[in-house]
Amino acid sequence: MENGETKTLPKSWAMVGGDGPRSYAQNSSYQREVLVIVNELMNEGIKETLDFKIPCSDSSSTCTFRIADFGCSGGPNTFLAMEKIMEAVEQKYHAQLQNSPPLEFQVFFNDVMANDFNTLFKTLPSYQKYFAAGVPGTFYGRLFPKSTLHLAYSSYSLHWLSKVPQEVVDTKSPAWNKGSIQCSGTAKEVAKAYSAQFKTDMDNFLNARAQEIIGGGLMVIIIAGLPDGILMSQTVVGIFNDFFGSCLLDMAKSGVISEEKVDTFNLPVYLSSAKELEEIIKNNGHFCIERLNRLDHPMMKMKVEFHISLFRALYQGLLGAHFGRDDVDKIFEYLAKKLAENYDSVFNAGKHQHVEHFVLLKRIIN
Amino acid sequence: MENGETKTLPKSWAMVGGDGPRSYAQNSSYQREVLVIVNELMNEGIKETLDFKIPCSDSSSTCTFRIADFGCSGGPNTFLAMEKIMEAVEQKYHAQLQNSPPLEFQVFFNDVMANDFNTLFKTLPSYQKYFAAGVPGTFYGRLFPKSTLHLAYSSYSLHWLSKVPQEVVDTKSPAWNKGSIQCSGTAKEVAKAYSAQFKTDMDNFLNARAQEIIGGGLMVIIIAGLPDGILMSQTVVGIFNDFFGSCLLDMAKSGVISEEKVDTFNLPVYLSSAKELEEIIKNNGHFCIERLNRLDHPMMKMKVEFHISLFRALYQGLLGAHFGRDDVDKIFEYLAKKLAENYDSVFNAGKHQHVEHFVLLKRIIN
Repeated sequence: MENGETKTLPKSWAMVGGDGPRSYAQNSSYQREVLVIVNELMNEGIKETLDFKIPCSDSSSTCTFRIADFGCSGGPNTFLAMEKIMEAVEQKYHAQLQNSPPLEFQVFFNDVMANDFNTLFKTLPSYQKYFAAGVPGTFYGRLFPKSTLHLAYSSYSLHWLSKVPQEVVDTKSPAWNKGSIQCSGTAKEVAKAYSAQFKTDMDNFLNARAQEIIGGGLMVIIIAGLPDGILMSQTVVGIFNDFFGSCLLDMAKSGVISEEKVDTFNLPVYLSSAKELEEIIKNNGHFCIERLNRLDHPMMKMKVEFHISLFRALYQGLLGAHFGRDDVDKIFEYLAKKLAENYDSVFNAGKHQHVEHFVLLKRIIN
Repeated sequence: MENGETKTLPKSWAMVGGDGPRSYAQNSSYQREVLVIVNELMNEGIKETLDFKIPCSDSSSTCTFRIADFGCSGGPNTFLAMEKIMEAVEQKYHAQLQNSPPLEFQVFFNDVMANDFNTLFKTLPSYQKYFAAGVPGTFYGRLFPKSTLHLAYSSYSLHWLSKVPQEVVDTKSPAWNKGSIQCSGTAKEVAKAYSAQFKTDMDNFLNARAQEIIGGGLMVIIIAGLPDGILMSQTVVGIFNDFFGSCLLDMAKSGVISEEKVDTFNLPVYLSSAKELEEIIKNNGHFCIERLNRLDHPMMKMKVEFHISLFRALYQGLLGAHFGRDDVDKIFEYLAKKLAENYDSVFNAGKHQHVEHFVLLKRIIN
């Protein structure tokens, strides 16, 4: 099972529909705050680092500027981000080049094959000022012809690994992640295997994008991560994942779900430190780091049901593929019950929050 | 109601699934024969008219060649056509330019918003040698940035009008198409209205593509049409449509469906003569005609059920939008019954077949 093909749209967790108590509309003040900060960083970064002599050199009467969102999932977040990027690009364009030919944007929305492109297309803003296209496929491989993109963007997607590292679910490996479903950071061999997978995936991503982005082109990455020196098991999200793992073990022990399936289940997610991320990008060598900022986000207290719906929107597809659709319902029922009983111990135990890394890269001109 | 948004994928009629007696696999010898002729014409035409100094001028280390299928509907026809085009382009490329940099293809699959892009993406050949993208929206408007396409293709799509001309369903207009559901060619005012709509649509299509295709770039159009001097009402398909119209009138008279709805129903389809098509393209002025061939196709005798399924796959969406989903079932039941009773008189009355026009255009360099 390739995660690249089965992941359930990392970003869609924020998108519980409607305007009820569990909805995104009612529970998105955090996301909105992060977006404001991100937009400001993007805006500044684009204006300071984008050089229009390069992107437009190939055209005479019009300048076409191509943007791609890697791991776009559904709207409206991707539409908002693309609009903000275009605003910044346009401002820089007109500031740098007076009497310049009109700028036309082509925006590519990429996500895995399983993504719902039909809905994405139907929800495109009706008056978008760009030419839209959808590009299906895993972003850990090539998706565009050489040197055809001017700006790449990827938000909340790259902490999803292309797959669970094989060793951690191999009972015969020293890296077997016995009794845990994530890279909590405490077992060295497990952490090594996860970190190696993350490095491989990031390298594949950077190599593919290096081919696709023109020299001087930009890439914005927003990725979930850890503060330096903090382990996953010390964070709120890590403790929650561990709690979820213990629920699965309970259910296996009482024979409700298969023990073997629980043993072989791990989350294909890795939260990296800024240091680790920086090292990977520098070793890769195709991009120079223009910005690397940490976005902190104090997590609000939420009701149990809301936690469950967020978690379910994230992992339902993954769990369904592993445990079967019927067991997924049982699993979430049990999790909800247990979480209600243990709310304080789960959510007050974590003294640390995970963070988001904001990275602005520039493709080195060969 | 814009036909551009509600048409039910012109080409999907050939795609009855599986391998049963009604399936495409069992009933596609005609389509396969046409494809063989079309492929040969395309292959020759591309090799003779494509000039690689132009498409590749903007790139140094790689040459990106962009192809778009306008009105692609579902696979596999569009995939096969794209492969054939790429083969011809590649052969010409290597013949014209020795020691040339590698050629990379980007293929854009366009159809209306209502098209099932999810399935299109999932059925993409697993080893395709190109970078694929989906582009939603009506091809009667702009869909791509200026001068970014090298070759455009549109097959069995442009005889679908963007809408039914308003006059023909306006009971107060001299062009009211009373008692008929198509442009049968006998009523002058009706024919004028249909022809004007076709001209407007083709003009919009050509103008949009003229912006998007680079100077010297090619466009292949395969479009259903009529032999010169033959009226729709003299062709097998025209007689079938008239028969279908008479069934609707029967049903309205007996009160099964609304008379008003039958009066206001017309097919948004227009079959043009080669002469008419040529005139529109010449008047438009953005393209020169490199080839204009007529493809004849002797239609095989088919069983009633097969006729019905083809017709249903074509028009179900359109009829559903106009009459309501429940009435559609009734309509097809009635049509099947009546067609079985009148098979010979319907299918032996038409002495003429409609044709397909094969057109190869070259974008004039400004």
